[in-house]
Amino acid sequence: MAVYTDVPADELSEYLAAYDIGELLSYKGIAEGVENSNFLLHTTAGSFFLTLYEKRTAVGDLPFFLGLMSHLASHGIPCPEPVKMRDGKMLGTLAGRPAAIIDFLEGVWPRKPNAVHCAGIGQALAKMHLAGQDFAMDRANALSVSGWRPLFSSAAARANEVQPGLREFLASELNYLEGRWPKDLPSGVIHADAFPDNVLFLGDRLSGLIDFYFACNDMFAYDVAICLNAWCFEPDHSFNVTKARAFLSAYGRERRLSEAEQAALPLLARGAALRFLLTRLVDLLNVPAGAMVQPKDPLEYVRKLRFHQSVKSMADYGVETSGLPA
Amino acid sequence: MAVYTDVPADELSEYLAAYDIGELLSYKGIAEGVENSNFLLHTTAGSFFLTLYEKRTAVGDLPFFLGLMSHLASHGIPCPEPVKMRDGKMLGTLAGRPAAIIDFLEGVWPRKPNAVHCAGIGQALAKMHLAGQDFAMDRANALSVSGWRPLFSSAAARANEVQPGLREFLASELNYLEGRWPKDLPSGVIHADAFPDNVLFLGDRLSGLIDFYFACNDMFAYDVAICLNAWCFEPDHSFNVTKARAFLSAYGRERRLSEAEQAALPLLARGAALRFLLTRLVDLLNVPAGAMVQPKDPLEYVRKLRFHQSVKSMADYGVETSGLPA
Repeated sequence: MAVYTDVPADELSEYLAAYDIGELLSYKGIAEGVENSNFLLHTTAGSFFLTLYEKRTAVGDLPFFLGLMSHLASHGIPCPEPVKMRDGKMLGTLAGRPAAIIDFLEGVWPRKPNAVHCAGIGQALAKMHLAGQDFAMDRANALSVSGWRPLFSSAAARANEVQPGLREFLASELNYLEGRWPKDLPSGVIHADAFPDNVLFLGDRLSGLIDFYFACNDMFAYDVAICLNAWCFEPDHSFNVTKARAFLSAYGRERRLSEAEQAALPLLARGAALRFLLTRLVDLLNVPAGAMVQPKDPLEYVRKLRFHQSVKSMADYGVETSGLPA
Repeated sequence: MAVYTDVPADELSEYLAAYDIGELLSYKGIAEGVENSNFLLHTTAGSFFLTLYEKRTAVGDLPFFLGLMSHLASHGIPCPEPVKMRDGKMLGTLAGRPAAIIDFLEGVWPRKPNAVHCAGIGQALAKMHLAGQDFAMDRANALSVSGWRPLFSSAAARANEVQPGLREFLASELNYLEGRWPKDLPSGVIHADAFPDNVLFLGDRLSGLIDFYFACNDMFAYDVAICLNAWCFEPDHSFNVTKARAFLSAYGRERRLSEAEQAALPLLARGAALRFLLTRLVDLLNVPAGAMVQPKDPLEYVRKLRFHQSVKSMADYGVETSGLPA
């Protein structure tokens, strides 16, 4: 529920004068996003999305995020394109905060993704991986394997309050993954948070890949593993092999997973599950009393992690290795 | 910060099929309004405002509010018009809540109202009072003089925590007003909450009078008194006689205040100040620990009330009695 900063209309109108997007008609604070203040603008030129970056955002990363969106949009990826000011800049200052305006993309995110949606994100993710290859900037993934032990350490003492035995489960999984995490798989810019609420559809057509504020450089197959977790389980946490097949096949049609990537996928999926398990656990243990934000359930990712522990090969994800198109 | 109910896209699309407003393109929860869940919809037919009425709303009052908006809009008042379903109904059910769709009005509310804005609300308020005269439904004002003592009783024990002597100040003012509150002034439908954040402007032109969820039947001059409090004081709580003159003159050009109304205005303004003082005080004393909503300052209305106590006649509001047009 995020509007941390109110913006007076006259200040906003003045700010918009630096852009070539017409006159302000209305703006509404959006109850979406946890980190920043977001507004939907109507101007005489159309609809736009205004973000004021609040304290928790690393301002130094904003040129990466905005540059990436601009790069991807110009390469045909359906993502919001930052609007440039008349002087070419994408980042301004409004109400004392760093601010950016991006295109508003129509579409709705699927609350109950089906196999068609899964194929849609598979295709878009692969296209994004390819389109990002000639993007010039870099950003390390702070939430890859080296980031997990600090998260574990901060949550360990109270983990068993959430579920008996959780601390030991996490410690063991972390040791296992740290010892085996791959290093040489194909890498580039990944989205790293392509959950259903960051993917917009108009009917069956994917109309927008949004929220690039976790994007970073890492293994492509790790992004695939994140999506397997985010898209291919049912609300009861059972794995849906039909959705996984749709997702992986659509990805593979755009960008073939190498044999090494395929072999590593179950391990990467365990890692992706552990990453969301840990961040959700830390969030849950640090909810301020009386907060209106409902923390997400970390235990959902315990169940997903256990599933991936049982996976022997890509066949368990519904795809024969030979079945992926060359 | 209000989106209490998430609405799945497929449920919303299905709901929209009862209306003739095109296909859903997008919807965003709006961080606005405290009582209900509000969404800005884009459809192939334009922009609309969807409200889901949450528990605190008296469902029995919704036909009054929606009927009033429909009546006023059809009489040329710039207020949101409820969209009718194909079967003529204005009230439906979505995600288990009573729901309505109204026109989305472009415009921004003035954070720093000037005299032109004050004239705008003066004119619109008078036109609304006139246009509501042949509206067939009635709704009592639960927050008029008879509603103040229960509010006072619930806050009295802790009032002096907020300001020393506040309890005695409130008790004395309440006694004074209860003994003198007028009964025979011209009455009809009033907005009762026409604060700047409920009035939209495009430049100097008033484009929307919104949020009719406090509308009720009461004295027209009491609505005028509420606006005097809401529009004609500076951020330092000093009274701005230029703004008051602009407001009252513009009102008077559309609907002349009778001599009895003019004579009663200082008393009504004290009452209006007491009403907002009491509700803000009760809200402040009942903020849940850790709530993200910043309660409004009740003491602002102590200062306003003291000003009205010093007022002898309309001249102190910047308008000679004879200066109001016939």
